[in-house]
Amino acid sequence: MTVIGLGPMGRALAAAFLAAGHPTTVWNRTADKARELRGRGAAWADGPLAALRASEVTVVCVVDADAVGAVLDRALAEAEGGRLPATTLVNLTSDGPERARALAARARKLGLDHLDGSIMTPAAAIGTEATRILYSGPAGLFDRHRGTLAALGGTALHLGADPGRAASFDVALLNLFWTSVTGLMHSFAYAARQGVPAGELAPHAEQMARLVADLLPGLAADIDAGRFSGAESSALTSVAASLDHIVHALQEAGVPSAFTSEARELVNAAVSAGHGEDSPVRLADFLGREPLGAQGRG
Amino acid sequence: MTVIGLGPMGRALAAAFLAAGHPTTVWNRTADKARELRGRGAAWADGPLAALRASEVTVVCVVDADAVGAVLDRALAEAEGGRLPATTLVNLTSDGPERARALAARARKLGLDHLDGSIMTPAAAIGTEATRILYSGPAGLFDRHRGTLAALGGTALHLGADPGRAASFDVALLNLFWTSVTGLMHSFAYAARQGVPAGELAPHAEQMARLVADLLPGLAADIDAGRFSGAESSALTSVAASLDHIVHALQEAGVPSAFTSEARELVNAAVSAGHGEDSPVRLADFLGREPLGAQGRG
Ligand SMILES: NC(=O)c1ccc[n+]([C@@H]2O[C@H](COP(=O)([O-])OP(=O)(O)OC[C@H]3O[C@@H](n4cnc5c(N)ncnc54)[C@H](OP(=O)(O)O)[C@@H]3O)[C@@H](O)[C@H]2O)c1
Ligand SMILES: NC(=O)c1ccc[n+]([C@@H]2O[C@H](COP(=O)([O-])OP(=O)(O)OC[C@H]3O[C@@H](n4cnc5c(N)ncnc54)[C@H](OP(=O)(O)O)[C@@H]3O)[C@@H](O)[C@H]2O)c1
Repeated sequence: MTVIGLGPMGRALAAAFLAAGHPTTVWNRTADKARELRGRGAAWADGPLAALRASEVTVVCVVDADAVGAVLDRALAEAEGGRLPATTLVNLTSDGPERARALAARARKLGLDHLDGSIMTPAAAIGTEATRILYSGPAGLFDRHRGTLAALGGTALHLGADPGRAASFDVALLNLFWTSVTGLMHSFAYAARQGVPAGELAPHAEQMARLVADLLPGLAADIDAGRFSGAESSALTSVAASLDHIVHALQEAGVPSAFTSEARELVNAAVSAGHGEDSPVRLADFLGREPLGAQGRG
Repeated sequence: MTVIGLGPMGRALAAAFLAAGHPTTVWNRTADKARELRGRGAAWADGPLAALRASEVTVVCVVDADAVGAVLDRALAEAEGGRLPATTLVNLTSDGPERARALAARARKLGLDHLDGSIMTPAAAIGTEATRILYSGPAGLFDRHRGTLAALGGTALHLGADPGRAASFDVALLNLFWTSVTGLMHSFAYAARQGVPAGELAPHAEQMARLVADLLPGLAADIDAGRFSGAESSALTSVAASLDHIVHALQEAGVPSAFTSEARELVNAAVSAGHGEDSPVRLADFLGREPLGAQGRG
């Protein structure tokens, strides 16, 4: 097994392969991140080409798709115009579906078998039951390597042949994760300003996060059924009032409110469009109505 | 027991008091929202003054603190300059701590005993074990009425004498809840654009929400200890890269990205301030550093 990329996640992946008894070769742009792994028995490859040559399967886990591209460029340069070894590349780098598809196409052109994967759990969970990795790409390739990849622990799911599918889930799920964490950090900052330590808010915040999880299947069923009535839940007018007073309270406490204000603007826009009596699930429908291509890129 | 305000939450509160066998009087600005409750045995008061007179304890649950003020104004007008009855007002309306304190002060001036409460669960949970209500105000008053308020079910916690304390928790927790729900709705809208129904994303999104809950105590402990090292988790530079590709993917799919972009701007600002190698808990500290009063109101 080869692992390219030794950030916190790449190191955790390599450590899990080593712990499962797989001979493991590593390479990272900055060599000193390999030190600890070499102490635990990992072999060091002199460059990405040597890394790809060392094993039948290479996991690449770097910061984004551009960085994977840079690694392939470097391997090609080392091959001096020659060919890359016919190995399997398992790209566990997070990025969007278009880029995942472009990378898959490039890898195939270079003669590599290619699977795309998205890691849904923190580095600390790798090698434990908590690990969750979503894969997409050729089903036969997934079946061939799932035994080796099982060293990473937990659940490995194959979502389909489209190499961009795992990345689509990844975008949706990371958007949920990072916006939730961002909201949470605002809440902790606000609480601190009110003299409430994070540890005192935490059990209540944990209940709130579990409440979101508990409500989630019902919200999803409402979205898929087009059930937007607010009769049983908070109407969007009431959500708008809540967000108004939250934004006001953040501002009064001197905590930046731009993030929460954007949530309020969205709810206000939905109310203005005539959805004031609807439930919050209307927002998913409302957000999906943006005409394709109407937004700038950036 | 009296309940003033018969939105979805007020109706659930009144129904729970009735179900627990308490003679219950209700009033709402718009009378027809009382119809169903009257069929189940609730008495109708002709106005807020009559409502306050009808019971030893009145729960008020309207859209916000201004609406509570409007209810009190109307009761005073009905009293024709006279005094309000010496009852206990339990304000279960959500609003910020400054307004909760102002209302408490006004209620005391008017000769009312006053407790402030924040309901942390949806209307559908009222009367079940899942209910969570945070109270603040005089401890003796809470003790005197906790037996009656137990009709609402679940957990009732007293957070302290400061009448604004429950509201402070409320702001922090509702900020977490509504920003999480807003993020989730973006994720569902994005998934729909990728041909992924909400029901297919939901089990993964639920895991994500539970992951936030699982990580929360550790994040809080790190904040309180000032432990900002990113060695074991994603560094903010990596979070910035993730948010970049999420924003890019939302835009590519034609889903509004302003909300997620604000999260990215925050992370970028923290990276620019020299915190790129720190973990995401650095954001709580960073957000709390805004000089008090430096922001406009709105
Ligand atoms: N950490 C987590 O808990 C976690 C959880 C889920 C998913 N992920 C995903 O896993 C991937 C890796 O994350 P991470 O936390 O390990 O660290 P990261 O900070 O996202 O990425 C660091 C790695 O990328 C490499 N890199 C960056 N630009 C490069 C380039 N142009 N050429 C070659 N290598 C380059 C770095 O090499 P140098 O050492 O030389 O800078 C380092 O190995 C990311 O896509 C992340 O979103 C991480
Ligand atoms: N619904 C939930 O699941 C939930 C969960 C937790 C907390 N809460 C909180 O509970 C409170 C009530 O929420 P809700 O969902 O029941 O409905 P809401 O839409 O927030 O409030 C509707 C109630 O406010 C009344 N109202 C508005 N302006 C008024 C005014 N100027 N004078 C008198 N009454 C006025 C309405 O009377 P009319 O009928 O005459 O318009 C109605 O009774 C809010 O603070 C909300 O944040 C609700």
